[in-house]
Amino acid sequence: MRSPSIARRAARVAIALGLTLAAVAAIAQTVSPRAAIDAANAKFSADFAKGDANAVASHYTAGAWAFPPNGEIAKGREAIAKVWKGAMDAGIKQVKLTTLEVESHGDAAHEAGTYALMGEGGKQLDNGKYVVVWKKDGGQWKIHRDIWNTSMPAPK
Amino acid sequence: MRSPSIARRAARVAIALGLTLAAVAAIAQTVSPRAAIDAANAKFSADFAKGDANAVASHYTAGAWAFPPNGEIAKGREAIAKVWKGAMDAGIKQVKLTTLEVESHGDAAHEAGTYALMGEGGKQLDNGKYVVVWKKDGGQWKIHRDIWNTSMPAPK
Repeated sequence: MRSPSIARRAARVAIALGLTLAAVAAIAQTVSPRAAIDAANAKFSADFAKGDANAVASHYTAGAWAFPPNGEIAKGREAIAKVWKGAMDAGIKQVKLTTLEVESHGDAAHEAGTYALMGEGGKQLDNGKYVVVWKKDGGQWKIHRDIWNTSMPAPK
Repeated sequence: MRSPSIARRAARVAIALGLTLAAVAAIAQTVSPRAAIDAANAKFSADFAKGDANAVASHYTAGAWAFPPNGEIAKGREAIAKVWKGAMDAGIKQVKLTTLEVESHGDAAHEAGTYALMGEGGKQLDNGKYVVVWKKDGGQWKIHRDIWNTSMPAPK
């Protein structure tokens, strides 16, 4: 048997290491989006319950669009913080999110779910549904497009 | 110079052909989703204008979900046809869609846009915004998730 040169040994180590990193990356890619999105949603709701609109807006990408009912598209974190500040000012104390599905394609994903909005004393003020387009942004999943509407009957 | 064997020549042809097919596929992938989605939206609006709710529903995947305001999630083409039949019965004659963006990731894409709903004589009854998740389904881009809400002020 020939003794491999140092260069060959280094190449073999690099290949072995490369495969290991690729395997780890593949596993992280497979497991991570749903778990990361669940965690981001939990943090979103916690930040909302604190009444911190800027912290809520920090879960969005810099180029995010939010689509509030009865209003224009809010573009960017500052405009989105105003949307959530408006909801807080209108008496909404808590946002409950229930994810129905997450489907990811590389650094993008979509989520569909239902929401409930609670006021003082946990009274339910609204319930509806939403679709969010998520983007992996600097290693973190952030909300990129966010649209929702009520499931309650239209006022007569 | 050595004369390459037939096997080597075949391999070279296969590589050259493979690269060409890959290049063609890459170009088709880049150009196609937006154009296909524009065409599907034009057909959607034409089918709606004819009052054909089943034809409108045919633009959705079999597993599609539509998220109508003031209602529950409609799952599948039959339920989605009912949503659009309901809109037609409520006096909506035309749906105008304006795409703001399409972003594709393989066989999935998301679109964001604005809509206007017109009644008898082209009178605008509603305007708002939407997010659609598209899926390439049997070679055709179909609506997979479809959510919208009004931009008009809430009734007082």
